[in-house]
Amino acid sequence: MTKRKERLVLQDLLGSNKKIANEIREKLIQQGILTANLLSSPGAGKTTLLEKLAKELSPAYRLGVIEGDIETQRDAERIRAQGIPAWQITTGGACHLEAKMIGNLFPQIPPDLDFLFIENVGNLVCPASYDLGEKLRLVLLSSPEGDDKPKKYPKAFTTADCLVITKADLIPHLPFDPAKVIQEALELNPQLKIFTISALTGEGIQDLVAFLLQQLQELRSSHA
Amino acid sequence: MTKRKERLVLQDLLGSNKKIANEIREKLIQQGILTANLLSSPGAGKTTLLEKLAKELSPAYRLGVIEGDIETQRDAERIRAQGIPAWQITTGGACHLEAKMIGNLFPQIPPDLDFLFIENVGNLVCPASYDLGEKLRLVLLSSPEGDDKPKKYPKAFTTADCLVITKADLIPHLPFDPAKVIQEALELNPQLKIFTISALTGEGIQDLVAFLLQQLQELRSSHA
Repeated sequence: MTKRKERLVLQDLLGSNKKIANEIREKLIQQGILTANLLSSPGAGKTTLLEKLAKELSPAYRLGVIEGDIETQRDAERIRAQGIPAWQITTGGACHLEAKMIGNLFPQIPPDLDFLFIENVGNLVCPASYDLGEKLRLVLLSSPEGDDKPKKYPKAFTTADCLVITKADLIPHLPFDPAKVIQEALELNPQLKIFTISALTGEGIQDLVAFLLQQLQELRSSHA
Repeated sequence: MTKRKERLVLQDLLGSNKKIANEIREKLIQQGILTANLLSSPGAGKTTLLEKLAKELSPAYRLGVIEGDIETQRDAERIRAQGIPAWQITTGGACHLEAKMIGNLFPQIPPDLDFLFIENVGNLVCPASYDLGEKLRLVLLSSPEGDDKPKKYPKAFTTADCLVITKADLIPHLPFDPAKVIQEALELNPQLKIFTISALTGEGIQDLVAFLLQQLQELRSSHA
């Protein structure tokens, strides 16, 4: 296949994905549900952050989680153990979630949720190209991954609303300079909101929770 | 595009990739060059391991490194700083290397190398599907990524010859059980050779070096 044909195939895919994503976004906003798509490398702490947010937000707020994984139900089981409904999408090899997969789950999602979190497949590259109809996109970067990552994997950072630097408790043991990451990420995307957290020690979690609650309030007041 | 059409497009891509990979493998083996393709998530320590191997193997052995990245020349610069020739492939968004990219570099690769290392794009998913003509495939998993990864990202583990558990120095600070990873990886692929290393402290590096030298010797004695 030629490079041009490959490009056309990809454009076709992304175009139809975007259309479905826009429909999903509109529906979720009308229902007053704040939807966040979490992107990161494998093992950057997406599920652990969601467990922590479940503890902080539930039962005062109603949460639901869509778990994207290539194989296994492990992440959905961890979320359900927190008393939160979780729907597992196993892609069977595919490297990212697509909007139609979220659309297929729609009938199962309770319309009275406050927050819908989508944990994407662990991959800092491909998921960045696929809008899932989220209102907020969070990219997580764990401190052990290194402080040179934003410009090496730019799309995840240019398309995100928030950067969440995770595993802050490990920073003393690592050659990792948070200031360097923050500067580089802001050079790529000056609008990024940045949080530095440790799900283990609780550092930074309250700031992120406050931000999510404020976003929920804004969504509901502007679509009331 | 239908699911069936998507599958056919992918089969077409993988088929032509395999053909080019087989040609590359044959040429490199005939030249007596041991080629290793390094796969992992972003920030698992591929470049740091290559810096360490350069220190251990050079100048007694001649090394060359092909660096695959979405953007930046950073990794090639780090390798060149070790006195090792490095060729950077920036994919400009693509999530993996393909055999034809290696083929395009062929005229620049000295025919008297001992080792050619290919550092793939940081991505534990997509690169696993693309044979680059390597003799050995190494999958790296860093301890901070967690001990539940092999079955969540199986293809990288089923297609590899070696699993290299990196950042062993961090294990005391982590909820990470090496025995669990090793058992799960061997369930997926009983032939896997397993190394646990820390490029920082040097732990495990000598075992990996000895293995690579033995592989080089076997390649040359069976194709003399």
